[in-house]
Amino acid sequence: MISKRQIKTITSLHQKKYRKSTGLFVAEGKKVIEEFLNSNFELDTLFTTDANLFASDRKITLISEAELKKVSFLKTPNTALALFKSKDVLKIDSEGLLVALDDVRDPGNLGTIIRLCDWFGVQHLVCSEATVDCYNPKVIQATMGSLTRVNVVYTDLKNYLSETKLPVFGAFMDGSNVYKTNLPTDGVLVMGNEANGVSDAVSKFITKKIAIPRFGETQQTESLNVAMATGILLNEFKRATL
Amino acid sequence: MISKRQIKTITSLHQKKYRKSTGLFVAEGKKVIEEFLNSNFELDTLFTTDANLFASDRKITLISEAELKKVSFLKTPNTALALFKSKDVLKIDSEGLLVALDDVRDPGNLGTIIRLCDWFGVQHLVCSEATVDCYNPKVIQATMGSLTRVNVVYTDLKNYLSETKLPVFGAFMDGSNVYKTNLPTDGVLVMGNEANGVSDAVSKFITKKIAIPRFGETQQTESLNVAMATGILLNEFKRATL
Repeated sequence: MISKRQIKTITSLHQKKYRKSTGLFVAEGKKVIEEFLNSNFELDTLFTTDANLFASDRKITLISEAELKKVSFLKTPNTALALFKSKDVLKIDSEGLLVALDDVRDPGNLGTIIRLCDWFGVQHLVCSEATVDCYNPKVIQATMGSLTRVNVVYTDLKNYLSETKLPVFGAFMDGSNVYKTNLPTDGVLVMGNEANGVSDAVSKFITKKIAIPRFGETQQTESLNVAMATGILLNEFKRATL
Repeated sequence: MISKRQIKTITSLHQKKYRKSTGLFVAEGKKVIEEFLNSNFELDTLFTTDANLFASDRKITLISEAELKKVSFLKTPNTALALFKSKDVLKIDSEGLLVALDDVRDPGNLGTIIRLCDWFGVQHLVCSEATVDCYNPKVIQATMGSLTRVNVVYTDLKNYLSETKLPVFGAFMDGSNVYKTNLPTDGVLVMGNEANGVSDAVSKFITKKIAIPRFGETQQTESLNVAMATGILLNEFKRATL
């Protein structure tokens, strides 16, 4: 059974301001929820339509499919929905490879980039304040649990870049061929906004502009999507460490 | 003005069987339509809400925004919609780098892979018959015109692979480290289905199984999405040619 107040709270979590004020976010589906349960995120409430879905000592609130449908953010609700407490990550490593995002706006792109950080062992993702919220339900579902293993920090990106001792690489259409660039083990890779790329204000702090060569015969090809470019560039950084 | 018959034809093109029987597909928005107009695809009909959107000698059918909304496949219809004639591509190159898809089902993934082929200069994309149709409206919009520069061929993939003289590489979770694999200029890269990877039947024709190394500390990370893996592997093949 789910209370009216709970329904109101959950549906409000579509909006960033209510995620901020409550300090809660939504995860859906057994697989994603299990990843958060097995991490250092703290559970608030766990709703499920199937009493046998989770370990028997786990405190659950049993709800009907109709109730789940009412609060789910998914087109096809997925037997369980949980509220977890969000974390304010403040610490940023000063070594290793980091990724920084300058106003990436699409939740799917951020979700994919968090998964890529997880795959390539990047532990810190530094986001400008206008980058889409990592607790957005679409991001949570797209990360498939990778958010439990990557620290996402929201901060003034210009301030952060002005203070870091690490070399700062940025993805630019007119950057140097990444294949011919000496890529260090420790550094920051800055990726820009979907429509505008890295902003002028942030560009000032870029030590080295890099680009993925284009091999097609024409110059008409659209630029690569920011998540795809992040994947290919992270691959380049990590292959250089081996 | 758009006729009732035209409305019926256009809305039927959501379905593959009607795209097959009419030999037509839909492209929307000035940018995507311009790419097809400037290619060797043949225009059937061009509808637009703005008489000044295309060159003045171009034959257009002026329609209202309400009419466009009625036939558009987009949530936010985009001033123009065109019908083009589809092409049955039969010829497959026997040299260069080719990509082959074994039952990729998601239109967004196919669209991204066609864009990647365009970026990396791959001219032929060989698809198993169960791979999503490249004239699916979602694929057309996701390719951003790249379909005009990449030949997509649907065929019996096992037959094709059994006959090609090219070395056949396949992406497998347990494949050899791609960084340590000698990658030729000419070859076929086979990518598998989103859920099941490369099928057993197709695996028989793989000369070399390859994988993108994982750097994260845990083994929990989901595998990379098929389009992302295609991008990273094409980058590996093309960087090896330089």
